[in-house]
Amino acid sequence: MATKTIGVDIGGTKVAAGLVDASGEITCKSRVPMASTGDAAAGLASVETAIDAIFEQAPEARTEVTGIGICAPGPLDPKTGVILNPPNVPCWRNYPLAAEIERVFHVPARVDNDANAAGLAEALWGAGIGYTNVFFAILGTGIGTGIVFDRKIYHGRTGSAAEGGHVTINFNGPVCGCGKRGCIERYASGPNIARRTRERLPGGERSAILELAGSLDAVRAEHVGEAFRAGDAVAREIVTETAHLLTIWLGTIVDLLEPDVMVVGGGVAELMSSFFDDMRSGLKNWAINQRAGEIPLVLARYGSEAGIAGAAALCR
Amino acid sequence: MATKTIGVDIGGTKVAAGLVDASGEITCKSRVPMASTGDAAAGLASVETAIDAIFEQAPEARTEVTGIGICAPGPLDPKTGVILNPPNVPCWRNYPLAAEIERVFHVPARVDNDANAAGLAEALWGAGIGYTNVFFAILGTGIGTGIVFDRKIYHGRTGSAAEGGHVTINFNGPVCGCGKRGCIERYASGPNIARRTRERLPGGERSAILELAGSLDAVRAEHVGEAFRAGDAVAREIVTETAHLLTIWLGTIVDLLEPDVMVVGGGVAELMSSFFDDMRSGLKNWAINQRAGEIPLVLARYGSEAGIAGAAALCR
Repeated sequence: MATKTIGVDIGGTKVAAGLVDASGEITCKSRVPMASTGDAAAGLASVETAIDAIFEQAPEARTEVTGIGICAPGPLDPKTGVILNPPNVPCWRNYPLAAEIERVFHVPARVDNDANAAGLAEALWGAGIGYTNVFFAILGTGIGTGIVFDRKIYHGRTGSAAEGGHVTINFNGPVCGCGKRGCIERYASGPNIARRTRERLPGGERSAILELAGSLDAVRAEHVGEAFRAGDAVAREIVTETAHLLTIWLGTIVDLLEPDVMVVGGGVAELMSSFFDDMRSGLKNWAINQRAGEIPLVLARYGSEAGIAGAAALCR
Repeated sequence: MATKTIGVDIGGTKVAAGLVDASGEITCKSRVPMASTGDAAAGLASVETAIDAIFEQAPEARTEVTGIGICAPGPLDPKTGVILNPPNVPCWRNYPLAAEIERVFHVPARVDNDANAAGLAEALWGAGIGYTNVFFAILGTGIGTGIVFDRKIYHGRTGSAAEGGHVTINFNGPVCGCGKRGCIERYASGPNIARRTRERLPGGERSAILELAGSLDAVRAEHVGEAFRAGDAVAREIVTETAHLLTIWLGTIVDLLEPDVMVVGGGVAELMSSFFDDMRSGLKNWAINQRAGEIPLVLARYGSEAGIAGAAALCR
């Protein structure tokens, strides 16, 4: 009998759970609202409800599940499984979530942040299979990264390593939401691609982006992507520039880590995927590593289910 | 009987060797010129001469030495011990240096680049003792870095990881010798500190730097250091700015790697050491890691002997 693990992906408003088999396949899923009160027990109850829903759908899982992994908003301590003080989940302050889950469900539980966990899922089951050193990035609303060595997440001193979205690529650049200047996230996350597009557009130039969005204020990265696929010149300029900025950033990643593979997921990664070859060849200008261009740059296996798969991977 | 290892530090013009005991103490040393011809055998003979000089000074070493480690200019392959095509050592092209040394001296031999090796020496014997994840940087003529996890050098895919001197901190910055723009080395290596000083000085301002150097063209980082220690205002401005730039860079290192300790050596590190506390507290602006300032930033144990100690550490 193959063992399975449950992955739980906690966000500010929802808890998604899934049953994941030994090959990383998600065989059933559940989704419930996350408790919105400041009550720690209510938050735990939301997680329990999502997990119980899995057991209702797949009763055999009660005996097959060997662990429950949880992706939660940080900061958190992956070594102890304690949730520290996440701004998006106000119900938990120094809350021993892993221990509570173990107490309720009687299986080992692990907690980590979403990008670390999703990187592990790619290393075990996805685009990073067979590689020793995996650099993973999720390019979406923010830019999160994970570093996986020998199928283990690299955590650093306190579990706060691999915050690659906040690598400074221009110390004179614009101030990021994090307070630093010129982070790659400040240029290349979805909302920042939209911002750059809004700053670029008022020149009076016609663009399908504006037609799709309806107004300048309404422009989102999705409109840029749709216009790009339709051949719009401004969208192409924005996407090309984004590829250039991501190449500069990957140059730093390669010169520091020289990973065996770079796996990128998220909506922005999908948008950029037709530029992956250009980005790899552009590394000849932005990495001193003469063989940087040989390192595969590939799309992640998991899309919107990266959190569930990643959480489930934590117990493998 | 305690085991010892020999460390050999090969540069473009010299070969230095040392006998190193189990606590990292260098108990005797030798130094010979490096062969300057294009002849591979002559290069090997220079290394042999330096090692033989150790055995002549310490005959008991013939039975005590358990390995010979070698720092050589890159590119090289630390896994196979092959020197690839170093511009500074033209006698060797795809030369199996480790295998040749093993053939001659009948002990295991290892080859690595100087910053990786020096970082390992700090982790085993120096300022990094007791820390799991060590980030090491040598700030001198260039900026070299080493990453040591669990007392082992992190090499990456082909041995070219940890080229931290070429992390881009400003993609609009000046072109570095490596071809990238805005590398930290382009701002904060010794020659680049001198360059920034020369660019700063022609304003007609009086400075002890010019008196020490004799002329603008002759300004070197050493003059900046001497003038700084004497209280010169321009030198203080340059050193303060260098500390700021290094802080930005360390912010990227911390946000990616969150090491347990940051060890820095070399002449520029000594110059900057009175700013280490400022740099650590400056990380609150340049790392999103809220506990970045807790990470020790310390001077390396080894100075000019880092190459010998590092090479000897390769066989521990």
